[in-house]
Amino acid sequence: MDRVALNGLLRPKSIAVVGASATPGKIGFTVIDNLIKSGFEGAIYPINPTAPEILGLKAYPSVLNVEGSIDAAVITVPAKFCLSVVEECGKKGVKGVIIITSGFSEVGNRDLENQIVAVAKQYGVRILGPNIVGTLSNSDKMNASFAPFLPLPGKAALISQSGALLIALDAASYTRRVGFDKLVSIGNMSDVNFADVINLLDDDPKTTCISLYIEGFKDGREFIEASRKSSKPIIALKSGVSAHGAAAAASHTGSLAGAAKVYGAAFQQSGVIQASDLNNLFDRTLALSLQPPMKGDNLVIITNGGGVGVLATDAAERYGLPLKFVPAEVQTELKKHMPEFGSAKNPVDLTGMAGNEWYADSVRFALAHSWTDGMVVLYCETAMTNPMEIAQGIKKAVDEAGVKDKPVTVSFVGGERSEEAMRWLVENGIPAYNAPDIAVNAMAALREYSRMKAMATESLGMDIKVDREAALEVIRRARIDGRGALTEIEAKQVFNAYGLPTTATYLAKTEDEAVTLAKKIGFPVVMKIVSPEILHKSDAGGVKVNIKDEASVRDAFKTILTNAKAYKADANIHGIAIQEMAPWGTEVILGSVNDATFGPTMMFGLGGIFVEVLKDVTFRVAPVSHGQALRMLSEIRGAPILAGVRGEKPRDREAMADTICRYANMIVDLADEISESDANPVLVYEETKGIKVVDARIILKKK
Amino acid sequence: MDRVALNGLLRPKSIAVVGASATPGKIGFTVIDNLIKSGFEGAIYPINPTAPEILGLKAYPSVLNVEGSIDAAVITVPAKFCLSVVEECGKKGVKGVIIITSGFSEVGNRDLENQIVAVAKQYGVRILGPNIVGTLSNSDKMNASFAPFLPLPGKAALISQSGALLIALDAASYTRRVGFDKLVSIGNMSDVNFADVINLLDDDPKTTCISLYIEGFKDGREFIEASRKSSKPIIALKSGVSAHGAAAAASHTGSLAGAAKVYGAAFQQSGVIQASDLNNLFDRTLALSLQPPMKGDNLVIITNGGGVGVLATDAAERYGLPLKFVPAEVQTELKKHMPEFGSAKNPVDLTGMAGNEWYADSVRFALAHSWTDGMVVLYCETAMTNPMEIAQGIKKAVDEAGVKDKPVTVSFVGGERSEEAMRWLVENGIPAYNAPDIAVNAMAALREYSRMKAMATESLGMDIKVDREAALEVIRRARIDGRGALTEIEAKQVFNAYGLPTTATYLAKTEDEAVTLAKKIGFPVVMKIVSPEILHKSDAGGVKVNIKDEASVRDAFKTILTNAKAYKADANIHGIAIQEMAPWGTEVILGSVNDATFGPTMMFGLGGIFVEVLKDVTFRVAPVSHGQALRMLSEIRGAPILAGVRGEKPRDREAMADTICRYANMIVDLADEISESDANPVLVYEETKGIKVVDARIILKKK
Repeated sequence: MDRVALNGLLRPKSIAVVGASATPGKIGFTVIDNLIKSGFEGAIYPINPTAPEILGLKAYPSVLNVEGSIDAAVITVPAKFCLSVVEECGKKGVKGVIIITSGFSEVGNRDLENQIVAVAKQYGVRILGPNIVGTLSNSDKMNASFAPFLPLPGKAALISQSGALLIALDAASYTRRVGFDKLVSIGNMSDVNFADVINLLDDDPKTTCISLYIEGFKDGREFIEASRKSSKPIIALKSGVSAHGAAAAASHTGSLAGAAKVYGAAFQQSGVIQASDLNNLFDRTLALSLQPPMKGDNLVIITNGGGVGVLATDAAERYGLPLKFVPAEVQTELKKHMPEFGSAKNPVDLTGMAGNEWYADSVRFALAHSWTDGMVVLYCETAMTNPMEIAQGIKKAVDEAGVKDKPVTVSFVGGERSEEAMRWLVENGIPAYNAPDIAVNAMAALREYSRMKAMATESLGMDIKVDREAALEVIRRARIDGRGALTEIEAKQVFNAYGLPTTATYLAKTEDEAVTLAKKIGFPVVMKIVSPEILHKSDAGGVKVNIKDEASVRDAFKTILTNAKAYKADANIHGIAIQEMAPWGTEVILGSVNDATFGPTMMFGLGGIFVEVLKDVTFRVAPVSHGQALRMLSEIRGAPILAGVRGEKPRDREAMADTICRYANMIVDLADEISESDANPVLVYEETKGIKVVDARIILKKK
Repeated sequence: MDRVALNGLLRPKSIAVVGASATPGKIGFTVIDNLIKSGFEGAIYPINPTAPEILGLKAYPSVLNVEGSIDAAVITVPAKFCLSVVEECGKKGVKGVIIITSGFSEVGNRDLENQIVAVAKQYGVRILGPNIVGTLSNSDKMNASFAPFLPLPGKAALISQSGALLIALDAASYTRRVGFDKLVSIGNMSDVNFADVINLLDDDPKTTCISLYIEGFKDGREFIEASRKSSKPIIALKSGVSAHGAAAAASHTGSLAGAAKVYGAAFQQSGVIQASDLNNLFDRTLALSLQPPMKGDNLVIITNGGGVGVLATDAAERYGLPLKFVPAEVQTELKKHMPEFGSAKNPVDLTGMAGNEWYADSVRFALAHSWTDGMVVLYCETAMTNPMEIAQGIKKAVDEAGVKDKPVTVSFVGGERSEEAMRWLVENGIPAYNAPDIAVNAMAALREYSRMKAMATESLGMDIKVDREAALEVIRRARIDGRGALTEIEAKQVFNAYGLPTTATYLAKTEDEAVTLAKKIGFPVVMKIVSPEILHKSDAGGVKVNIKDEASVRDAFKTILTNAKAYKADANIHGIAIQEMAPWGTEVILGSVNDATFGPTMMFGLGGIFVEVLKDVTFRVAPVSHGQALRMLSEIRGAPILAGVRGEKPRDREAMADTICRYANMIVDLADEISESDANPVLVYEETKGIKVVDARIILKKK
């Protein structure tokens, strides 16, 4: 997206409001009124066919009549007038058009929306919307929306796919004390999408963190690319993750939403932190906008109450930051700042006797210590202490510790005095929450960000040597046959072309060929009927295993042919596959789908009941980095199986991860050809002994 | 617990404060001051060895010098003086003693605590504490504690095992607008425990809901009994559920905490709702204290914003209340109260155009409709609507719907105006929250309460016919042998005495006996060495399966004996077990442990990787009702296995549940004898075909 668009959409210096009105209650009135009230310092041009002046500003019949240049045009006229207005904007050289008007694709009026985008493209104009509230920026004193006021100032930016929610969160920013510099309503995303706004915000010096409310979008790969590139933490609340919720979201936004699990995978791959609900979005945004990432796993919890200490400890485990005891020398020092019955282990319990000084001394020392990667400070309001003094002591101690790269979050449990102290902390850059588990959850977000960002910038390993031509040739032949699917042998040829190890499998057309091939492979072998019309080979008596010598090969050849003909007399039989009989290994499944949002996507799971009963599978959008592939192996519930159970040796996780990368590479490289595919089973052997794809299936895209 | 104690501890009419002081800052001063400030209308007797008067009240050197009767004595003197004070209280006829003083079992001083309880018992005095903050009651205008003020008035009662948390939550009740009638600090539970206070509160007309903060306790069965009996919803936040958290809790309270999973099971069995964290405790308490239980699964969500509607729908699925579309005739009616592009399906989206009237009409109609079991009303603050008017409209519509047995919760997302409207709703009996998922979570608590209460009052099926004497005789013989474990045959005899179906297994001491028994059982049979000293029978070559005729029995008899002697020359060999060879079935595992808190406890899980890799097991405190046993079968992850996978017929869940009930009955009946036990594997057959315990193990309690 051209850089001009930051001025055009989010930080314009001059704004035309098309459909400006002098009638209170009309959106064209509200937008002008809001721009004035928010103190916007650039030029404001009301556009109205008849009025000479609106709210004291000179009005123009068209943008074409405005003398000066226009960065952004906010459009509030009815849908049917929008096309000509956008054309005029194009002629005028407006950079960005913000279409507030609704009545487009969200109600099925997709044609008009497409026409508008086409015209805008002609003129190089970018469009935000339609069907949005507008955009708001505190640092630009700009409320170019019909939301009633600018949000509480802060360092975060929110992009919301729901306009109603954006207005509600605008107001809620004040009661929850989570500040935003910008609010962007993104609506139908006819042109500018999440990726575009993320790119713009990445360049915005006033924003430190980007929050997203997502219902569903189409350009999944653009989103991933923009998020991976972003130098700022991104946090997303994805709605419509339940079956019924996805249906509700679809009817609401008209989005073709991808599977919720795939969104989750994409977020992980692109370093996007997820929020579990609306409050969690606020809570994590606050932390990510104010504090640095947590670079290691060593969390110290300091408390004056055992109860909240234990609750925070439970939360630390729940949110993936299990607590460890602090080193002995740290305990020794901390012991000096608590009574005999306190605990210096972690959680560090200063006890209810803790006053300002103990808090400050403990926080300063433990935060500065090299072992510590992050700190959660808890306080239970007591009659003997003053929450504000405790807060100020904590802030001072954090500053004195002099470690700007270690995050701190705080929780005060108490009444109005505690709330006031927490507001002070937040204003002074320290995220504070009214429950201990929230402070821990916020810290976990800072830790996740650090972990995920490291992975998101990993190489995607796309430099694997492949024989694309060989694969395409196999596919071409199948298409000439008029087939929509490859045979097992063909699928394995494609797999092999992308470096995936399969069991050696050759096609024998005659009994003699079968014998020759079996000898070449080495006994024992497996023999299978090859016919596009016989999919359930075992049912047709078309599979024989553990064939140990030449005579048995000849017997099997005849029997399989006889069985196949008995099963389906007119079946087109390619021949019989002679296949290496792979030794036993742990069964896993690889597969690919074409996700509606993200395109070629990998699935991995353990075979048998794991996939059939437990649906224990995990996804990644292809291509997949080696690190992400390893993470797939460890995030399934059956992960211990690969680590080795019941005294077995660990399985070859490296080879398995390598296979996932190659497979992912294949489905990206052949994205135009492969609709879906699987390798099932794949046998995984002991460490260093590799893997083997035993059966393969590829369904072609319709052309 | 005698009924006198409600007056003695929670609602005394006269209070002595032992250790009363005229020196501000001393706890003995604070308690007197708090009682006066809270407006306590009963008699207050400061007890102080020297002062004639404290804060304007006549003081006495001892409770024995007080002329009138004393309901409760609050003790604030140092630990070493407590024993004699309690004795004086006993002599005086004080009903309840509230010991605020700390320095007892929580710091290892268990002897003194025990002595005090013993003296109290002599006089029939009940003791709350020691190591507590005190008790507070709004309806009695009584702050008998060192917490600074009474909580926000309301209908809930909170019992807290952490004093610091109680003080903090006292203050937090105001900022979170969750009202409590009573706060009870329970501390070391030397005498009065959670069960006692639950019993008392069940009789308290001012309380509609009981909230618990639990770190850990010992009297698990008393707790279950009290909770099951309670006519009021109980909600518990259990801390120390993580490994590190349990350690932290243990060091904090000195409690011998049972396994977290068993607490969860006990809560379920006794109808206690769980809170996931501190805010959730507040949120669910608010709903349970204000609204009736939700008696069916039909939830209607009404919203003016699609975004919050989808978030609420996701939450409904997450919290076990998946949304369904409302019936067609309801949709038709609702359609009248929304614009064309609204949705009447569920969530009912009135759109951002919704004003007071649409809200009121939709709420009134849908709530009154017979299909509806509960309703969540969502509102996103807009510039065009007034949150207070919307709130008042909702309240009026709910009243007009005239269905007092259907719960309603509300969420307003917005700023201060929304907060004010929500405060008004709460004051008028409708729980309101600042995020949609919280309103849904609160509704889920009301649904859970209804579901769990029905199950908690189920019969425990203890009227199974058993042969206790036969079981005890088997155990007695093993004890005479000096053994701590039963052999497989003995364990099966005990199982059989309690009606558990095992594979027929008999002991053969000679080859001829083996042949006779095999014929009696019917071929094929399994033969196993029986020796208390050979536990790993297979390793010792002591197991032969699928023995099909007399000759093979004779062969196997000799071989097993030879192998056993080779394995362990001096092993005491009882003989060889001749066992029915059970046909294949689904493998499950039953087991029992003696939980530190709850005593005999059942475990159930699927065999193989489910238990070994996935730890997919579930618990219930014995005895177990049939309904709970069925729930155990369906709550494990591998539950689909029992329902029948890959075209298999469903397994005999009824017989399996029956077996769990019998097993649970056995471990309760033999609680003095059995330390732990298991049946592994148990084979479950097709529906109506029953189950079979194949192997059995019982470890005896040390006597």
